Amino acid sequence: MKKENKYSVILGNLGNTCDRFLSSGYKDIAPKKELITQAAAIPGVQGIELVGTWDITEENADEVKNMLNGHGLSCVSIIPDLFGQQRWGKGSLSAKDRETRMLALEETRRAARIAQQVSCPLVNLWLGQDGYDYPLTADLRGQRAYLMENIRSVAAEFPDLRFALEYKPKEPRIFSFHARAADTLLMATETGLDNVGVCIDVGHSLMAGENVAESVVILQHYGEKLFHMHFNDNYRSWDDDMIVGSVHMTEYFELLYWLNEMGYDGWYSMDQYPYREDAAAAVGESVAFLRSVESLLTDKRMQSMRELIALGDATRSTRWMRELLLPPVVD
Amino acid sequence: MKKENKYSVILGNLGNTCDRFLSSGYKDIAPKKELITQAAAIPGVQGIELVGTWDITEENADEVKNMLNGHGLSCVSIIPDLFGQQRWGKGSLSAKDRETRMLALEETRRAARIAQQVSCPLVNLWLGQDGYDYPLTADLRGQRAYLMENIRSVAAEFPDLRFALEYKPKEPRIFSFHARAADTLLMATETGLDNVGVCIDVGHSLMAGENVAESVVILQHYGEKLFHMHFNDNYRSWDDDMIVGSVHMTEYFELLYWLNEMGYDGWYSMDQYPYREDAAAAVGESVAFLRSVESLLTDKRMQSMRELIALGDATRSTRWMRELLLPPVVD
Amino acid sequence: MKKENKYSVILGNLGNTCDRFLSSGYKDIAPKKELITQAAAIPGVQGIELVGTWDITEENADEVKNMLNGHGLSCVSIIPDLFGQQRWGKGSLSAKDRETRMLALEETRRAARIAQQVSCPLVNLWLGQDGYDYPLTADLRGQRAYLMENIRSVAAEFPDLRFALEYKPKEPRIFSFHARAADTLLMATETGLDNVGVCIDVGHSLMAGENVAESVVILQHYGEKLFHMHFNDNYRSWDDDMIVGSVHMTEYFELLYWLNEMGYDGWYSMDQYPYREDAAAAVGESVAFLRSVESLLTDKRMQSMRELIALGDATRSTRWMRELLLPPVVD
Amino acid sequence: MKKENKYSVILGNLGNTCDRFLSSGYKDIAPKKELITQAAAIPGVQGIELVGTWDITEENADEVKNMLNGHGLSCVSIIPDLFGQQRWGKGSLSAKDRETRMLALEETRRAARIAQQVSCPLVNLWLGQDGYDYPLTADLRGQRAYLMENIRSVAAEFPDLRFALEYKPKEPRIFSFHARAADTLLMATETGLDNVGVCIDVGHSLMAGENVAESVVILQHYGEKLFHMHFNDNYRSWDDDMIVGSVHMTEYFELLYWLNEMGYDGWYSMDQYPYREDAAAAVGESVAFLRSVESLLTDKRMQSMRELIALGDATRSTRWMRELLLPPVVD
Repeated sequence: MKKENKYSVILGNLGNTCDRFLSSGYKDIAPKKELITQAAAIPGVQGIELVGTWDITEENADEVKNMLNGHGLSCVSIIPDLFGQQRWGKGSLSAKDRETRMLALEETRRAARIAQQVSCPLVNLWLGQDGYDYPLTADLRGQRAYLMENIRSVAAEFPDLRFALEYKPKEPRIFSFHARAADTLLMATETGLDNVGVCIDVGHSLMAGENVAESVVILQHYGEKLFHMHFNDNYRSWDDDMIVGSVHMTEYFELLYWLNEMGYDGWYSMDQYPYREDAAAAVGESVAFLRSVESLLTDKRMQSMRELIALGDATRSTRWMRELLLPPVVD
Repeated sequence: MKKENKYSVILGNLGNTCDRFLSSGYKDIAPKKELITQAAAIPGVQGIELVGTWDITEENADEVKNMLNGHGLSCVSIIPDLFGQQRWGKGSLSAKDRETRMLALEETRRAARIAQQVSCPLVNLWLGQDGYDYPLTADLRGQRAYLMENIRSVAAEFPDLRFALEYKPKEPRIFSFHARAADTLLMATETGLDNVGVCIDVGHSLMAGENVAESVVILQHYGEKLFHMHFNDNYRSWDDDMIVGSVHMTEYFELLYWLNEMGYDGWYSMDQYPYREDAAAAVGESVAFLRSVESLLTDKRMQSMRELIALGDATRSTRWMRELLLPPVVD
Repeated sequence: MKKENKYSVILGNLGNTCDRFLSSGYKDIAPKKELITQAAAIPGVQGIELVGTWDITEENADEVKNMLNGHGLSCVSIIPDLFGQQRWGKGSLSAKDRETRMLALEETRRAARIAQQVSCPLVNLWLGQDGYDYPLTADLRGQRAYLMENIRSVAAEFPDLRFALEYKPKEPRIFSFHARAADTLLMATETGLDNVGVCIDVGHSLMAGENVAESVVILQHYGEKLFHMHFNDNYRSWDDDMIVGSVHMTEYFELLYWLNEMGYDGWYSMDQYPYREDAAAAVGESVAFLRSVESLLTDKRMQSMRELIALGDATRSTRWMRELLLPPVVD
Repeated sequence: MKKENKYSVILGNLGNTCDRFLSSGYKDIAPKKELITQAAAIPGVQGIELVGTWDITEENADEVKNMLNGHGLSCVSIIPDLFGQQRWGKGSLSAKDRETRMLALEETRRAARIAQQVSCPLVNLWLGQDGYDYPLTADLRGQRAYLMENIRSVAAEFPDLRFALEYKPKEPRIFSFHARAADTLLMATETGLDNVGVCIDVGHSLMAGENVAESVVILQHYGEKLFHMHFNDNYRSWDDDMIVGSVHMTEYFELLYWLNEMGYDGWYSMDQYPYREDAAAAVGESVAFLRSVESLLTDKRMQSMRELIALGDATRSTRWMRELLLPPVVD
C-alpha cells in the first residue's frame, strides 16, 4: 500500500505580496513568528520551506529551529536568496561579473550551512535572475558553464545535503538558464554529483508547455533526479501562482498518479503567491485539494488508472474522470 | 425555474478526420446516412448542424429533412462551406478577387435557401479562410469592408433567418478577420441588422485568451447578440477540439452559470474533431458532461454562485467547487 | 505629404524598476527633476507623460509645467494612479466596494484637473487593477457596468479633455476588463461621448495575439477612436516592455504604414520598463528605431506598400522588406 | 575564416499543401520530377531532403539518385514516412500496439537502406504521431521506453548513417514525446550511440518557447549532437512554417552567430509549408534571406558580436542591429 504524502508550505507564501506596479504590497502582514504559527495551523501541513536571509539567517537559525520543533514542523528546504537583492539583478551563480559570482557562491554556502544547522536535508536553488532578456546579450556557452561549475562546487562541499534546481521558463528574466525539466536535468547530471537534482514547480512546468506528469517520468527515469515538488495552479501562459485546483483538475490526478508510479517520496510543498487573498486560507485550500485527490487514489483506483493508460482510449479516460467527480445523468 | 438546455451536434464531427500530414484520414467512416442515425442515438441530442454541400444540398434537402424528422431531430444550423474548397483558399466573402466574393455570396445564399427548405432558423458563418498570413499582405481596411458588406447583403435578403458569425483567432489563416468575440460583435452590429449575431466556439474563445463567460456577457450586454454556442475543449493554445470536460472543469461551471444569467436560450452544440476517437462516443461523452454540470446548477446552487460572485473571495469560490466535486478530507 | 511623427516618453520609464521578487528595485535613480532633464535630452523627444501623484500633483502642477516649458516639452498625457496603491488592490473604477469606486472617481477627476492645469489634452486610463483572477469571483455584468458608468461620469465632467482607455489582457490581474482593442472600443463607444477613446500599447496588443496594425484599423474605422499610442517590444507572450525594435522589425513597418493610412495624428509615446538598463539610453534607442522606420516610409515607399498590400503575395512582400534592410546576395 | 553554409530544401515543400479543412489541397502541382528541377533552380540550393515512400522508394532510388546527380544536388536526408499513413495514427516507433511498432521499425530500416543507396549520410526522424492527446491515455514510461529502444535498434544496425531526431512540441499530437531540444537530447544520448543526434527545426523551437540559439549551444555542448537544421519562420505560438525572415530578424543573426561559434557544419535546410504561395519562390526567398545574413556575418562582425555578448548591454546590442539594418536618423 502506498505511503501517505507529506505536505509543506513555503513560509513566504504567508507574507506580503507585491508586484512591479504596487511595490509597497497588497496586504498588511503579521510578524514572521506569527506566520510560522499560521502555517502550523493549516490542516495537513507538516513542513516548512524557508528563504535564506529573509526568513532565516545563521544568527537566528537555532531560534527558528526551536520554533519549528515547537509546532512539530520539519524544515523541508532552505532557499537561498539569489534573486531578491539588487546585486543579483544581472545574475547570481551565472553572472558575467566574477565578484558577483563569488558573492553568490558564498550566499549559497551560507544557505547550506543554515540547512545543516536546522537539520534540513535540501537546498532549493531557484535561480530566477540567472538568464537573459535581449538577443545578443547572453554568453550562452560561458555563462551556462559558470552556472554548472558553481553548482558543482557548492554541492561537492556539502555532500550530506541535496540540491534541487528549480526551473522556470521566464520571470524575472525573459529567458532563464534553468528553463525546463530536461535542460535542467542535463545540467544537474553534468555535475556528476548524486546530490544534485531538480525541483518541479507545477506552475512553472505548465507555463513551459510541459505535461507535468511527463516531466516527473523523465526526471525519475534518468537517475531518480526529482528531488522536490512545488504546487500551485495557473492558466498555462504565466506563473499566476494560484490555489491548487482552482483551474486544473484532471491534470492533478494524472500528476499524482505518476508521482506514485515513479516512486517520488519527497514533499508536496505549496508555493503560491496569494496577491489579494488571505494567505493561510488560500494555502490551506491547496492542501485540502491535494489531500482529497490523494484520498481518491486508492490502490483500486490506481489500478483502474493503470488500465486506462494501457488502453489509451480518450473517451474512456474522460468518462472515468467524469464519473468520479460528477453525478450521473438520468434520462 | 430555468429551462432545460437543448443539445445538438455538428454532423461532420462523426465523419472522417484528417490533417495536413495525414490528409487521407485517420479513420474509416460510415456513409452519411448512418451518421445521422449515430447522432440521433446519442443520449440527450435533439438537434443537428449540417455543412452546406458536404452534408446537404438544395437537391437532397427534402430527403435530409425527412431523415431528421424520422429521428425526431431539429436542424439547428446550416454552415455554408466557405473554407473547404480550393477556390476559397485566399478568402471567400472578403477575398480580394471580385469573382471569388461573388461565388462566396452565392454559396451563402444557397445555404440560406437550404436552411429555409429544412425549417432551420440559423446560418452559421465560420469564415476560416477570411484572414491573412504574412505582414504587408492584407488590405485590413478594404477586405474588412468587403466582409461586412457581403454579410449585410445576404442577411438583408433573408430576414427570417439569423446569421451567426463564428470567430476564431487563427487556423487555417494565421490571422482571422473574425478573431475574437468583441471584434466580431463590432462587425455584426455594423451591419445594422437584427438578424446578424455571433457564435461562440468555446475552444476558439479559450485559444483567444478570453474568459468564455465574459465573452457571453459582452455579447448579450451589447444587444443580445449571442446567437449560438459550440462546445469542445482544449489546452488554451490551440483549437484541439477535444471532448468537453477532458481538460477544463471549473470554467464550464462559470460558463453555464453566465449563459443562464444572461438569458441565452439557444442550442448547446458539440463541435469536436475526434481525430483518433470513436466519434459518437466522444461526442456523447461531451453531452454527458454538460448535462451533468447542468443538473448540478439547481436554482439553489445558482443562488450560491451568485453570492460567491458578489463576495469575490477566491478561496471561498475554489472551496465551493472542491466541495461540490471532491470528497472531504477527514483528519 | 505626410506629417512628421511626434515622439514622447512616459517619465516613469526613467525611474526605478522593480518586480515581485526584487521589490526594492534594480537600480539607483536620480531625483524626479533630473529625470525630466534626461527625457528632454533624448533626441527627437518633444513630449512627456506624467503619472498623477507619482510625478505630478495639484500642488506642484505649475512648477512641473514650468519645468517642461523650460525644456520645450509638451505634457502629452496625465495617467492617474489607479493601480499602484493598496486601496486599488481589488479594483478602482470597477471595484465591488462602493467607497473604493468613489475614491477612484475622485482620483480620476484630480488627474483631469491636473491635465487642465498643465494644458495637457489627454487623460490616459490604464486600469490595471480592474479585472479579476479566479473563476467565480467576478461580477462580469455588474462590475463592467460600474466601469463604464464611472468612465462616462468623469469624461462628461471634462468635455475639453480626451480620455484614452489603455487595454492589456493581463497583469496585474489575470483577466483585465479592458483586455483587447475591440472590447475596450465597445465600452468607449457605450459611453456615448466623443471624448472617450482607446490607447494602444503595442506590447499589450502583441501579448493579446492581435496584429497591432489591424487594431489600429478597427479603432479608426469605428469612429476614429485611436486616441493614443504607447510603444515597446516583447516576445508576444508577456508584457516584457523592451526596447522598440529589439525583437520585431517588419511589424513596425506595417504598423507605421497603417497609422499613416488611417490618419492617426497623435503622439508616438515610449512606454518601456528597462529593468536592468540605463533608462534614458534604452528609451532613446526606441525613438531612434522608430524615427529611422519613419524616415524610410517616404511617399514613394508608402505607395509601394499600398501596391504590395493590394497584391497580397507573401513572397513579394517579404522580399521587399529584405531588399530594404539587407544587402543583395551575389552569386 | 569561416566556411560557407550549405543550403538545401525538403522536396515536399514544393508539393501540394492541405489542411484539415481543405484536405484536397490548396494548389495544383507539377509532377515530382519537375519539382526536383524547380528545387535545383533555386539560387544557392545544393541539396535535397526526400520523404521515404512519398518521394523515394527502394525501387526508384537509383533513378532519383541519377536525377539529383544530373542537377548537381546532394541528397541531404531521408525522412521516413512515420506520420502520414492511417496505420501510424496512434504512434509509430512508440505505438502501444506491438505490430505497429514492428512495421515502423521496418519502415525506418527501409529509409536507412534508401539512404545508403543514394549515398545520403542522414536519416531524419520526425516522429509526429508519437505522443498523446488526452490526460490519462499515455503510458509515459513504457511508450518512451519503446521509442528509445526502437531508435537504438535501427541506429545500431546502420552505424554508417546518422539519425537525427527532430523535435516539435505538438501537432499532429497535442503532446509529442520528442517535444523540446533537451528532452530529445536525453533520449538520443540514452541510446549510447554516437550516430544518434538531434535536428532543430527553427519554427518548432520557437513554438516551444526556446531561444533557438540556446538550443544550438545545449546540443553542441552535450556531445556535439546537433546533426541537422530545418529553417522556417512563425509567430511563436504555432508551426506556421513561413518564409524565413518574414517575421523574425534579430533572432536569425543570433542563431547564425551561435551556429558558427559552436562549430555546426551541417546543412541549412528549408522546411516550409507554403499553403497558398508559389512554393519555389517562397523557398527561394528563405534561402536568399539566410544567405544575406550569412554575408553580413564577416569575421569582423562576428568579433563585434562576440564583444557585444561579452558586454551584455541590451541597448548597445539593439543599437548595433539597428545600425546594421536601418539608416541613421539625421536631426
